[in-house]
Amino acid sequence: MSTSPVKALFAAKPERWTAWEAPLRRAFDEAGLTVDLSRDHAPDQTDYIVYAPNGPVADFTPFTRAKAVLSLWAGVEGIVGNPTLTQPLARMVDEGLRQGMVEWVTGHVLRHHLGMDAHIVNPDRTWINEPPPLAQSRTVTILGLGELGAACAEALVALRFNVFGWSRSPKAHPGITCLSGAGGLDQALAQAEILVLLLPLTPATDTLLDAARLARLPNGATILNPGRGALIDDDALLAALDRNIAHATLDVFRTEPLPQDHPFWAHPRVTVTPHIASETRPATASRVIAENIRRGEAGEPFLHLVDRSAGY
Amino acid sequence: MSTSPVKALFAAKPERWTAWEAPLRRAFDEAGLTVDLSRDHAPDQTDYIVYAPNGPVADFTPFTRAKAVLSLWAGVEGIVGNPTLTQPLARMVDEGLRQGMVEWVTGHVLRHHLGMDAHIVNPDRTWINEPPPLAQSRTVTILGLGELGAACAEALVALRFNVFGWSRSPKAHPGITCLSGAGGLDQALAQAEILVLLLPLTPATDTLLDAARLARLPNGATILNPGRGALIDDDALLAALDRNIAHATLDVFRTEPLPQDHPFWAHPRVTVTPHIASETRPATASRVIAENIRRGEAGEPFLHLVDRSAGY
Repeated sequence: MSTSPVKALFAAKPERWTAWEAPLRRAFDEAGLTVDLSRDHAPDQTDYIVYAPNGPVADFTPFTRAKAVLSLWAGVEGIVGNPTLTQPLARMVDEGLRQGMVEWVTGHVLRHHLGMDAHIVNPDRTWINEPPPLAQSRTVTILGLGELGAACAEALVALRFNVFGWSRSPKAHPGITCLSGAGGLDQALAQAEILVLLLPLTPATDTLLDAARLARLPNGATILNPGRGALIDDDALLAALDRNIAHATLDVFRTEPLPQDHPFWAHPRVTVTPHIASETRPATASRVIAENIRRGEAGEPFLHLVDRSAGY
Repeated sequence: MSTSPVKALFAAKPERWTAWEAPLRRAFDEAGLTVDLSRDHAPDQTDYIVYAPNGPVADFTPFTRAKAVLSLWAGVEGIVGNPTLTQPLARMVDEGLRQGMVEWVTGHVLRHHLGMDAHIVNPDRTWINEPPPLAQSRTVTILGLGELGAACAEALVALRFNVFGWSRSPKAHPGITCLSGAGGLDQALAQAEILVLLLPLTPATDTLLDAARLARLPNGATILNPGRGALIDDDALLAALDRNIAHATLDVFRTEPLPQDHPFWAHPRVTVTPHIASETRPATASRVIAENIRRGEAGEPFLHLVDRSAGY
């Protein structure tokens, strides 16, 4: 570990500085690191770029001595194709984000499974004493079995849901029926009473849920999208809500905040949540940034490096 | 095991026969039992009474050879004080009921934890991108650590909620802060951001949640009652909803179905669910009845015997 201060550039939106400064400094202290954290380091003096895709850095060329770009965001589709990026890129795998995602997904799966909405809004005071089926009779399909998808699948298996998972390449998880590839996708969709989208956004997943794939879902299916807005064709979803889709609960959108005139807001069977499922928590995420700087200074391999050919 | 058929009297409401007959017969077959199941056995010919408190049997005196009363219900407050009952009484501990309760409690805890209602009904199209705190920062207190309370507590601990539990006599559960006795109750209530009532109804728990105890809950507390309606003083709860209680989600009531003119229906911060949390499922519960008949015939101790001095 070097003894002279490591220069870390905070390259997120300026207004995020107040949320991140204290947690980052605390995490550096806890890791025993001497880090000069600033929003103003000269590019050729910067050792690490603490990065958000909507921040000030778009050209990585002048960062001649930077050892790594450490993303504050889990999703790296806004940087992975940047041709000026030659430094190693690590994405954020935040325990707080993962836990928050598990809570959002588990909560909304249970909400739809239990039919809560009919009780929350019940102006006719309808009392129908028919319990819902047990979770073991309810199939939930998760598209994407990365850090987040796998964590959500485990939580749903613990509640005894019948869980299918789909990923591009074959995977295995205890208690989950794992499918992969194009044929596996059709099968995963056909089973999904509740479909959860947790895929990264890549050229291969952009608009994955188009009209044809939406039509493969069973009648009465519910869609939860806490992943990426561009995974779904919005117009095709609106059309499918008149056919086989009973409800969609969406946390992410092609434009955020969701524009006030977007038809999702008014649709009686669409629930909008304001991009709260997949929020990185500064306290836990700062420890991941600190650990990667510690690794870089110690000559150890970085955590969560992005495979830039795969795009995530 | 006797070889002549065992006579089991089905003593629930007549209209429940269609729901129970096939599952019970299937469970007897699976257990290798020869059982003559009927709604019409003579009392002095009946070996086992398959019982529901709202069924036809109120006087147990003529059941001179009955070996046990096997309740289809988890709650036994409708029979435990019956002076004619001299036979052993077993309550229902149904895996399906337990699992359904875990789903209802976990779902509604997550609903309130995540603030879902503000997204489900959002006519102003409000977008506030502030994620909720993580479950580890949310205290849930469960009153009652029996079969159901303990199972719900475990599910909430698995989701990393900060779980307090309270029971009449001291108990210990991994990951749960267990309190007991009168002083423990005050402490448990004072911590409860979300309070879950899963106590049996006994003279000691009737109207446990009165005005004084409701006032001990922190500001903004939420109450979930999937236990027994008479655990709460309804008028005191309505008054507390104007003070420290933010919301109550109630599944059980002093009168069911909840009368159409009951103020709970109209209250904007009360959610009524129609006694669906604690429903016994015939398929799983029938196996418990069969196992107890098998045990009785084999001279083995019955499962889930009621301690009649404690009342549960």
